[in-house]
Amino acid sequence: MSHSYEHPRPALAVDCVVFGLDENGLQVLLVERGVAPFKGRTALPGGFVRLDETLEEAARRELEEETGLGAKVFLEQLYTFGDLHRDPRERVVSVAYYALVKLSDHRVRAATDASAAAWFRLGDKPQLPFDHEQILRVAKARLQAKVRYQPLGFELLPPRFTLAQLQSLYEAVLEKPVDKRNFRKKILSMELLEETGEREEGVSHRAARLYRFDRKRYVALEKAGVNFEL
Amino acid sequence: MSHSYEHPRPALAVDCVVFGLDENGLQVLLVERGVAPFKGRTALPGGFVRLDETLEEAARRELEEETGLGAKVFLEQLYTFGDLHRDPRERVVSVAYYALVKLSDHRVRAATDASAAAWFRLGDKPQLPFDHEQILRVAKARLQAKVRYQPLGFELLPPRFTLAQLQSLYEAVLEKPVDKRNFRKKILSMELLEETGEREEGVSHRAARLYRFDRKRYVALEKAGVNFEL
Repeated sequence: MSHSYEHPRPALAVDCVVFGLDENGLQVLLVERGVAPFKGRTALPGGFVRLDETLEEAARRELEEETGLGAKVFLEQLYTFGDLHRDPRERVVSVAYYALVKLSDHRVRAATDASAAAWFRLGDKPQLPFDHEQILRVAKARLQAKVRYQPLGFELLPPRFTLAQLQSLYEAVLEKPVDKRNFRKKILSMELLEETGEREEGVSHRAARLYRFDRKRYVALEKAGVNFEL
Repeated sequence: MSHSYEHPRPALAVDCVVFGLDENGLQVLLVERGVAPFKGRTALPGGFVRLDETLEEAARRELEEETGLGAKVFLEQLYTFGDLHRDPRERVVSVAYYALVKLSDHRVRAATDASAAAWFRLGDKPQLPFDHEQILRVAKARLQAKVRYQPLGFELLPPRFTLAQLQSLYEAVLEKPVDKRNFRKKILSMELLEETGEREEGVSHRAARLYRFDRKRYVALEKAGVNFEL
């Protein structure tokens, strides 16, 4: 079957940058390409947009098909990449989406269709084809900018956590050490954390206080447009 | 002539939200549509992307063709709108761009092809067709968010200006009054303004000090990732 138009059209695709986070650092979800071009190369999950789905639905479908993730991931639109020669086949414009998930919730199952998908440390991944290095760079910059004015999502932390755990998540996203005293002062001054009254158990060092996020307070602050600058 | 593809493709368009600013408020540049659908209605300038131009080039070309603006305007990509029925003709995905310009530099010339283009106050414009109301809303929110963490561009101000002039620009963008004492304290603490040593002339009230932006300092602060939160 063939589809004809009066004027030539670029193909429209989506690409997904899914970051996985744990205390050890940021990772990114990549797939092995099963088709040309760049067959066998490691790349961002993605594919062409169908006429009967929105851009976000297309991103979610491709992510699900290629990695087994999908429904549970909160995707945000990142940027649309439209350089003339970003795809060797023809003109392809790609709307990129990104997400940050808790790595431990999203281990890739090796025994399914998603076996060609895997998490890669950012410093330890193959060179990506197309303009995927650029897309990944833009996604990382966006993520790092975002956590500077909005606290890291609750869903990335266990229900009760220490300030050291929270700090190491920020350090993992920002990819640099954060001054401990400043960090504690700022994060506590936001009044987003509630003391649980409990302390860590089974640790050899002095047991640290356990906190939880005050969800209501977060929503209220966000509505008021308060600055979360760290 | 006709162009055939194996799979159906959405059409790809660009739309432009150009805000014009002066002390009296924000305006937006709109055009009268010359073709169906919504012929004769007032809408955002925009049109279809050609195969041999980038997305930004397409936005700039459409802006130039429809309003006479173009080369001098710094366009930033806003968001890509892809709802299934945003265009009554067929599936059209639109990459939206936005810009903020100094209104007095961009008066629309009534005697040219741009005669169907005009500036409209946001509170005083016709209802826009397609999803252009949504695009405009997203653009305004982005602009307001942006001036909260980045100073308004130099190009919007005369070379020497008073703090009252600067404050009224912020109030125009934010669409709300700004506390004078806080504003002055914060803007001066950024050390972005230099006193010229001169004062206003020809005013009936007490002549205010004239400032200029310290461009080098601005670039240095921006590189350091400093927060401009107002």
